[in-house]
Amino acid sequence: MSVIEKINCSNDVKELSRDELELLCTELRKFEIDNIAKTGGHLASNLGTVELTVALHRVYDSSVDRIVFDVGHQCYTHKIITGRRDRFSTLRQYGGISGFPKPHEAVDDAFVAGHASNSVSVALGMARARTLNGDNYDVVALIGDGALTGGLAYEGLSNAAASGEPLVIILNDNNMSISENVGGTSKLLQMMRMRPGYLSFKKWYRAVIKKTSLVYKLSHKLKEWLKSWMLPDNIFSEMGLEYLGPIDGHNLDSLEKAIRLARDMQEPVLLHVITRKGKGCDYAEAHPDKYHGVGCFDASTGVLSAVETSFSDKLGEFLCRFAEEDRQLVVITAAMAGGTGVECFSSKYPDRFFDTGIAEGHAAAMAAGMAKQGLLPVFAVYSTFLQRSYDMLIHDVSLQKLHVVFCVDRAGLVGSDGETHQGVFDVSYLSSVPGMTILAPASFQELHDMLSYALNDIEGPVAVRYSRGGEGEYKDSCVAAESILRTGEDITLVSYGPLINQALEAADQLASMGISAQVVKLGVLRPNDFSLCLESVKKTGKLIVAEEVCDSGCIGSKIISEAAIRGIELKAAKLLNLGSGIVCHGKVSEILHEKGLDAAGIAEQAQELCGSCIEIK
Amino acid sequence: MSVIEKINCSNDVKELSRDELELLCTELRKFEIDNIAKTGGHLASNLGTVELTVALHRVYDSSVDRIVFDVGHQCYTHKIITGRRDRFSTLRQYGGISGFPKPHEAVDDAFVAGHASNSVSVALGMARARTLNGDNYDVVALIGDGALTGGLAYEGLSNAAASGEPLVIILNDNNMSISENVGGTSKLLQMMRMRPGYLSFKKWYRAVIKKTSLVYKLSHKLKEWLKSWMLPDNIFSEMGLEYLGPIDGHNLDSLEKAIRLARDMQEPVLLHVITRKGKGCDYAEAHPDKYHGVGCFDASTGVLSAVETSFSDKLGEFLCRFAEEDRQLVVITAAMAGGTGVECFSSKYPDRFFDTGIAEGHAAAMAAGMAKQGLLPVFAVYSTFLQRSYDMLIHDVSLQKLHVVFCVDRAGLVGSDGETHQGVFDVSYLSSVPGMTILAPASFQELHDMLSYALNDIEGPVAVRYSRGGEGEYKDSCVAAESILRTGEDITLVSYGPLINQALEAADQLASMGISAQVVKLGVLRPNDFSLCLESVKKTGKLIVAEEVCDSGCIGSKIISEAAIRGIELKAAKLLNLGSGIVCHGKVSEILHEKGLDAAGIAEQAQELCGSCIEIK
Repeated sequence: MSVIEKINCSNDVKELSRDELELLCTELRKFEIDNIAKTGGHLASNLGTVELTVALHRVYDSSVDRIVFDVGHQCYTHKIITGRRDRFSTLRQYGGISGFPKPHEAVDDAFVAGHASNSVSVALGMARARTLNGDNYDVVALIGDGALTGGLAYEGLSNAAASGEPLVIILNDNNMSISENVGGTSKLLQMMRMRPGYLSFKKWYRAVIKKTSLVYKLSHKLKEWLKSWMLPDNIFSEMGLEYLGPIDGHNLDSLEKAIRLARDMQEPVLLHVITRKGKGCDYAEAHPDKYHGVGCFDASTGVLSAVETSFSDKLGEFLCRFAEEDRQLVVITAAMAGGTGVECFSSKYPDRFFDTGIAEGHAAAMAAGMAKQGLLPVFAVYSTFLQRSYDMLIHDVSLQKLHVVFCVDRAGLVGSDGETHQGVFDVSYLSSVPGMTILAPASFQELHDMLSYALNDIEGPVAVRYSRGGEGEYKDSCVAAESILRTGEDITLVSYGPLINQALEAADQLASMGISAQVVKLGVLRPNDFSLCLESVKKTGKLIVAEEVCDSGCIGSKIISEAAIRGIELKAAKLLNLGSGIVCHGKVSEILHEKGLDAAGIAEQAQELCGSCIEIK
Repeated sequence: MSVIEKINCSNDVKELSRDELELLCTELRKFEIDNIAKTGGHLASNLGTVELTVALHRVYDSSVDRIVFDVGHQCYTHKIITGRRDRFSTLRQYGGISGFPKPHEAVDDAFVAGHASNSVSVALGMARARTLNGDNYDVVALIGDGALTGGLAYEGLSNAAASGEPLVIILNDNNMSISENVGGTSKLLQMMRMRPGYLSFKKWYRAVIKKTSLVYKLSHKLKEWLKSWMLPDNIFSEMGLEYLGPIDGHNLDSLEKAIRLARDMQEPVLLHVITRKGKGCDYAEAHPDKYHGVGCFDASTGVLSAVETSFSDKLGEFLCRFAEEDRQLVVITAAMAGGTGVECFSSKYPDRFFDTGIAEGHAAAMAAGMAKQGLLPVFAVYSTFLQRSYDMLIHDVSLQKLHVVFCVDRAGLVGSDGETHQGVFDVSYLSSVPGMTILAPASFQELHDMLSYALNDIEGPVAVRYSRGGEGEYKDSCVAAESILRTGEDITLVSYGPLINQALEAADQLASMGISAQVVKLGVLRPNDFSLCLESVKKTGKLIVAEEVCDSGCIGSKIISEAAIRGIELKAAKLLNLGSGIVCHGKVSEILHEKGLDAAGIAEQAQELCGSCIEIK
């Protein structure tokens, strides 16, 4: 029996001998590589935190203590240890386990994770609840150095430091969030890495002051004096956190000792751990960026399966082209140069490329400052992460009608990352931003043409939103607010983005049933008076609007409102969308099917609508 | 001729003698006190920055150089200096000048301000634009220590430090943002204040290394060595910013010298200035909190005009009452204990009260952690500032259906603070948060009853949104999703919150014209199937929905959608709201009138709608 098979909960790890622990780490790595090779997932970050996670389970009981993961794409070892080894082959698959912590999967997952930098705030809330309720458990936040570039982490650290709450914050420092780290904080961590011996002194010092009450009385003064002479200050200790580290994150012994020490200090402690992304897997260690989030690959060679050309790829290509003509064009990313496809821009125009780190609020406000002084800033960002900039979109960009172009990637369903990453709120929240134009390209050529339109012809803020992945059958380009792709008499089908392919296919299916559907594609979601849609409705009397967004603030409700205000009669209408917006992981095609948003679903709803109207007649 | 009358632009300040400058500061203070006493406005913060602002105008030309104010409630001296003295009596009045920087008022106002912590990000964007475009002007950010508690400021500072861009960040440190400062950063600033002599050393050191190339070559090593021995590190220098200070913010000479030095360093510099809020006005200096934002007062005694009891006052009272019964209830504020009325709670239950500083994102995420572990957190926050938590509302609170109660103050029009502070987006953005219940009390009693409902009877996240100021004629309480306040046959008027008073008055006016209006009050904005509204519409065929919110995502469009989907015929409909959501400052009554949302406006629109329908018939 291998060691890994003995482990079914947090406490099982505590039973292992030193040798078995080492073996467990080796087995965990192999298990993860073999599985991720088949399912896809986050490889490098998980390989980097095997020992750290094992050490955490040596010290804490995750069924009672609260281990709060930040981002959460390093939770695989934790999931395997806490009873999900058998289901690990279903990782990120429809109906399978999630690639991120989910409390509904196991009590061991203390909190959802997905967006960066929230763990310290959440853990502080938990620690305060624990103390107020007189409960007896420990709270740990596990945050990466990348997540530390987010202002939310700073707010959490600053408040945690002042709270005095027993709370351990583990800084998993691999100097390599998703892209290379940027900013002053990153430089600072590099410096701190070079200061050894701090921990052993700290342990001695603590041991001494605990031994004699006399020394204890002098403690405060002594501590300050010793600190100022012997212990280099750093940003964490300056904020008021007890700082421990740095610790080798691949040495189980040191890790376990340091975590125990941190726990026993019973105050807000930051434990600095140095890990290496991709550890123990040569290709992942050599190219941690490339093996951060991957599809399927060959486990022995690391050769990745080919992926289709995506909207993100085309974005980078087009921005490079537009930048040749327009010297004012600059590109901003928040630690997502690879994901948003703008890496090529950063190589070609390093002086006009700005990576802010995980700091979407700053990125939007900085873009506003740039636009005010005559640059043409393009912020390439995932739909779900742009939620962090909502206030800046209104306050900094919109109130002054500044021309900032937001390239909103992963708009709509994102697939296997699941509910924390779905890009299904942007149509709603962007529509509330005063003066925001929203464009929705459905093909690569449309992305090109709409980007050109956004850069050159629009005043004020503009968002170009596009899907994860590639284009479908529809490869034309029509930048118009509305365009009729198919004429019909019985029902009006409205959609936008690549989902238009489902609407077109639905129209084909309906045709074979003898129902003639008019298909209207929206190019501009806002501003739009929906004249063509309403003209079509005047003819057909029936409307279906299909969207990969949440129901509140969807475009369908705006079209219906417009009809009512203009006094246009609607015999029947249905809005097909994602309801509340909480949507699980799985292939996009699987989710579309589940939600009735694929061609078959749309056709079925249309048929029903036409049927019910005929009955009424 | 007084000195103040000679000053009509930034450069006029540069012509003054030392004596005249001192006189100018005295005159500015008197002018501001006398005027604010009549108009209301921000007193203490402006009195604290008179010398600092004058010194800025000695060094910079605000018509060319970019001075980016943070929050902006300290911009009065700047406005008076830059040609707006004559209009200063119109401050915060309808049609008058704004109490915050507005680029449309004068080129000297570099950027809008209102929400905290954005200035460094904006200034960095401007500095980068300046450098890329090869322009020749200086950029300054003026940020208070309160705004420094916001994570956005940290993101800005971290990025500014790494940028190398010539940029001066002035930290206006009065140890007293709006409420008392909290968190680790605040403690740190207190320590730094006690370290004198740093600036003079820094000047000498810079002078020396510039003189000899030999020393210059040794510079880096020497600098590091000297720094580690003689200069205490601080959070700013650790991030990579050049740190200057602390400087006495009421000494014109030191200020001017330090600002010049900072400017000439041509790199990212943080200049730490110590000021005293309310300086030069005994009552404001003694009670800077009380005289932060004020209505009218007696300039000589400081006695404030009486103000009506507000929803905020009642919130504090009710929360204290509910906390007696429920030991899990805790209250969170983001530096707005006074404004949101929860100061009394903080006195009565100090252990259950948490002020996060200006950190709304952290406050929401921390609340989520608390709720996950069994507390019942109430976050009292202004509608406009909750925009900062949008992502955390979805990611941290909603996905796990956590029971956090958001008391959303200043929802709807806010009056004289104007466009940066209008609470007109919350209905839209809160509606998109999965599972969020939204309650809209229209009277104090309803606030009480809905708060009780939110605390005790609702699962998942819930927002109770209420207006700035007090209740109107409607003093009843009806917690129901919908309630019919008046029956009628000709038209359905729907509204919620204290605006219901305008709808009721409109119904009276319509009755006198022979039009019988049914008035439906919404208590629950979400979830709501609007059955009573739709029943009413079936009868009247005509609908007006009046709301103090932006058009996108308004409740009116949801009612109309619901009608269409259920196949209920609407003969005519009108949505009365605030359009794009950008709304100027002025009395709420003035704005309601301008937007056609007062009783007369609603009645007029209703009359038109009824008239047009009669014509059609």
